[in-house]
Amino acid sequence: MVLAETELSTIDDVDAHANVDEVLAAPVPDGVWISRFEAADLHERADAVDPGLPLAGMTFAVKDNIDVAGLPTTAGCADFAYRPERNAPVVQRLVDAGAIVIGKTNLDQFATGLTGARSPYGAPESVFGGGLISGGSSSGSAVAVANGSVHFSLGTDTAGSGRVPAALNGIIGIKPTRGLLSTLGVVPACRSLDCVSIFAREPSLADRVMRAARGFVPEDPWSRRAPGEARQIRRPRIGVAEGLDFFGDSGQEKAYARFAGDVTVDAGPLLEAGDLLYRGPWVAERLADLGEFLATHPESVLPVTRRVLETGLGYTAADAFRGRHRLQELRAAADRMWERIDVLVLPTIGTTFTHTEIAGDPIGRNLILGRYTQFANLLDMAAVTVPNGFTADGRPASLTLFGPAFSDDMLMTQARSLYETAADGAGMTIAVVG
Amino acid sequence: MVLAETELSTIDDVDAHANVDEVLAAPVPDGVWISRFEAADLHERADAVDPGLPLAGMTFAVKDNIDVAGLPTTAGCADFAYRPERNAPVVQRLVDAGAIVIGKTNLDQFATGLTGARSPYGAPESVFGGGLISGGSSSGSAVAVANGSVHFSLGTDTAGSGRVPAALNGIIGIKPTRGLLSTLGVVPACRSLDCVSIFAREPSLADRVMRAARGFVPEDPWSRRAPGEARQIRRPRIGVAEGLDFFGDSGQEKAYARFAGDVTVDAGPLLEAGDLLYRGPWVAERLADLGEFLATHPESVLPVTRRVLETGLGYTAADAFRGRHRLQELRAAADRMWERIDVLVLPTIGTTFTHTEIAGDPIGRNLILGRYTQFANLLDMAAVTVPNGFTADGRPASLTLFGPAFSDDMLMTQARSLYETAADGAGMTIAVVG
Repeated sequence: MVLAETELSTIDDVDAHANVDEVLAAPVPDGVWISRFEAADLHERADAVDPGLPLAGMTFAVKDNIDVAGLPTTAGCADFAYRPERNAPVVQRLVDAGAIVIGKTNLDQFATGLTGARSPYGAPESVFGGGLISGGSSSGSAVAVANGSVHFSLGTDTAGSGRVPAALNGIIGIKPTRGLLSTLGVVPACRSLDCVSIFAREPSLADRVMRAARGFVPEDPWSRRAPGEARQIRRPRIGVAEGLDFFGDSGQEKAYARFAGDVTVDAGPLLEAGDLLYRGPWVAERLADLGEFLATHPESVLPVTRRVLETGLGYTAADAFRGRHRLQELRAAADRMWERIDVLVLPTIGTTFTHTEIAGDPIGRNLILGRYTQFANLLDMAAVTVPNGFTADGRPASLTLFGPAFSDDMLMTQARSLYETAADGAGMTIAVVG
Repeated sequence: MVLAETELSTIDDVDAHANVDEVLAAPVPDGVWISRFEAADLHERADAVDPGLPLAGMTFAVKDNIDVAGLPTTAGCADFAYRPERNAPVVQRLVDAGAIVIGKTNLDQFATGLTGARSPYGAPESVFGGGLISGGSSSGSAVAVANGSVHFSLGTDTAGSGRVPAALNGIIGIKPTRGLLSTLGVVPACRSLDCVSIFAREPSLADRVMRAARGFVPEDPWSRRAPGEARQIRRPRIGVAEGLDFFGDSGQEKAYARFAGDVTVDAGPLLEAGDLLYRGPWVAERLADLGEFLATHPESVLPVTRRVLETGLGYTAADAFRGRHRLQELRAAADRMWERIDVLVLPTIGTTFTHTEIAGDPIGRNLILGRYTQFANLLDMAAVTVPNGFTADGRPASLTLFGPAFSDDMLMTQARSLYETAADGAGMTIAVVG
């Protein structure tokens, strides 16, 4: 925690204009940015920053499915693009907290995909190189943070789009409780599941951004008020799962095995819930908003994205309700799990892929990437992704901490502790609060 | 409240065998009961009653879509019938509280309908006669209470099936918050909306039954825990609506106008939410469970019921999600309404119908009956229906009190006050608690 505090105070001392110059001087890797403000405009924004604000002068990037006034929102599809009149409330809250928005970042088209390979604006590589995918769909936002271009960034996370690229770039990814950060002004993927997510290089800043970004927005029907008192847990009971599939990746398997939990839980109901998303009726939720565009502009959409979205046409309303009923049973199973443990720790992804591997099986390998992320929003969980060192062959490993809805602050405390232990290179443990 | 207490202590003094004999001696109007236990069996149950229990020796009827061990569950369809091995948990809780289940009552087939005219087991008449429908779908349970055969009864209420027959028979109908009474062992209509409801002749007993019947059931994925502290409200702000449609029924319009609220609210978003049920994708939710039976046994289902259910085949999964998204906006509007008022009071039904009138337009007039009831479960409201005197031509009038989820106890306090004022023949007012 000392480390984090030090880093933050360093950031606070830097002036806004220097930060802007740093972004402008930073290398611009292929496929990370879709649009950025001009230098003059950025310096004008830096002028306006009140140094007393909690995020004063910090720079941030915004995934290009979230509205920023003055830049188009493309959602990764040029023919879909529109020019929003105002910032999404979540962006405005960060600007009001003193942060400077630099521009819009690349994503898997319509936030559909976990690879970073499904965009007409290029396919970013992980900061760790070697042809490794950046992960997606918040590909550009993750890389822009990991390579040091900006202090933090916003992504979205419906099925894992905030967690998977955090894992592949060795940074922190917060997937907040649904509705805690407003999704107004965000291009819907699955409206009932969509979340705005946060990327930062270390947990303390991620937490500070989270506190500035969250808040009830009355005009947003999906916005939720957090219950008054957050549960403080002195000795959280940590759950881990056995028998997970690492798809033959012994490096990732070993990285997960380094983490010791208190209780072993059955991940079966979680994984079944996750399957409702792309192998079940929830894929049709994407058509509720995108269906008309897809029908009228089939050639504007990437073939792989179209193929995924069109599977939603095969489901009836009765199928959707049947899926909803099964989900309720799985939610009840998850609720029973929260009676035994406070935090569940899983690998963020079971294995990693290169761009070449994804090209070989773009849909099947995407499903593999989502295996341990896609259930979270269906089961109303909060999640934080934390780096977990490296495999012997140098690929990033990562853990995701899950808790029930509105456990965000408790999870963040545990994530900080895990991050500091990992940074020390020691074995993984979880903090005892208080 | 004095009236209610007196009635209850009278009931307490009566012995269980006398109660059973009274039920056996009571007239059995056409179409009220589907099956009953034998006299010997009932007296055996009376023997077993512990006189110290809260509902000791009271008799009750159960709508025939709720499981009672020893009697078939028909849901109003002989070919669908099955013999349950155990009581539904909600029935068992009442038995455990000392009550004696007499038998199973008629209903609109598959609880689909608000008239009481859609059953192969007959079409009960309202206790007020004149060819007036009993209302449905909990037709038999309402009439069995209203005519004094049993002390109380269970119905179900997805779209108004507990409130509409209460209105047409001049009794109390509680439509609890979803999940407060378990729906395990209930034939699903719309699983995500189904509620078990309670009928009694006066509010005090209805409340006592409610307290015995409710409780979290871990095996029921739809069961909900009530939040710890119920909100006590000293001076509830009462909302009423203007410009409601009474479908030309000036008698019902005048009856509603006798009630004075504090604040006038816009019922528009509520009515729009209600339309999602039968004129929108939620009708397909009924097919999630019934679809297979309907497809394999089309001739076993009443033509009118089949016609209603089959409209669900016309909706896609994307339609279902689009409906869900619109509902979220309407829920937000309802939440804003609860910031201005504590209780909303509406007419339970805008007008009444005879069986002849229903036969003339069975689907259109059913929709009219549901106008002011069908939004409640979609918008997660609790409701209590209370008699409101009579029209000049002698038809029953009634009011329904609505509150947000888990306001059940507060609503019941207001319902008692309203009932007593109505019983005194004076103008309608709402109690000041405390």
